[in-house]
Amino acid sequence: MIPVFSVVSSKSNMGKTTIICKIIKELKVRGYKVAIVKHHWGDFEIDYPGKDSWKHRKAGADTVIISSPTKIASIKKVEERTKLDDIIEKIENVDIIITEGYGFENKPKMEVIRKELSDKLASRENELFAIVTDFPLETKIPQFNFSQVEEIVNLIEEKFLK
Amino acid sequence: MIPVFSVVSSKSNMGKTTIICKIIKELKVRGYKVAIVKHHWGDFEIDYPGKDSWKHRKAGADTVIISSPTKIASIKKVEERTKLDDIIEKIENVDIIITEGYGFENKPKMEVIRKELSDKLASRENELFAIVTDFPLETKIPQFNFSQVEEIVNLIEEKFLK
Repeated sequence: MIPVFSVVSSKSNMGKTTIICKIIKELKVRGYKVAIVKHHWGDFEIDYPGKDSWKHRKAGADTVIISSPTKIASIKKVEERTKLDDIIEKIENVDIIITEGYGFENKPKMEVIRKELSDKLASRENELFAIVTDFPLETKIPQFNFSQVEEIVNLIEEKFLK
Repeated sequence: MIPVFSVVSSKSNMGKTTIICKIIKELKVRGYKVAIVKHHWGDFEIDYPGKDSWKHRKAGADTVIISSPTKIASIKKVEERTKLDDIIEKIENVDIIITEGYGFENKPKMEVIRKELSDKLASRENELFAIVTDFPLETKIPQFNFSQVEEIVNLIEEKFLK
């Protein structure tokens, strides 16, 4: 089983992507392979208009896969949100999986919070293993500021990668 | 086993994507679910610069997955070209798989040829089940012009979907 945790927040623009990118960079420096699963509430576009894969999709293809010597990409139509565990079980060849969002799922959580947007945690404390915040919170959960990337990754390593 | 065929040509710009998109549209009209696997010789970019998934990849993520209620997309780093059969065996919930390219693989082939770019077939005749061409070729393989989409899909239906 590949270890998984979720980076969550009560609102968007809290800084999840920013801290996740810093964590990815530090995990890569330490030699780990990382998968990210981002949850999107609405629809999204991914490929460039005019590209062949885009044309295939616009023509109605249910699944489009592009394979090269460096990358393989796929875009698949679905009729409902795929369960996180069904996504995770197909991920291979990584040491850790980080989800962006999926606060409603049951994975261990790191909550990101900024005072400007909220002063209350969205997660229950028993689900949380870390908080990234720009103000002190009254809790026993380990707290970090947005610059303490090494310390955050030390905790991730200790908790999930040892 | 989901049926598979490859649309191939000796050069790029021969019209593979164009005819594939027409075929997809007609297959969809007839109620089939379709997957496309496009072979890319070099590297390719897929997501928009600045989007979260792009940031995750630039930070070094080995696999990035985006999941929504309508679509699931993944971009995975690889160290060598993935074998077509390894791609195909993971495709689910479609009636037919069309590859764009993969002339070097052993799937039944439809060759696309335009006189302006080539007057010789790239495929061996025993691999071919159809030719889409803008000039007549001396061969017993069924030939179609670029407008005969219904006739092409009749043959595809007869050969792969009955």
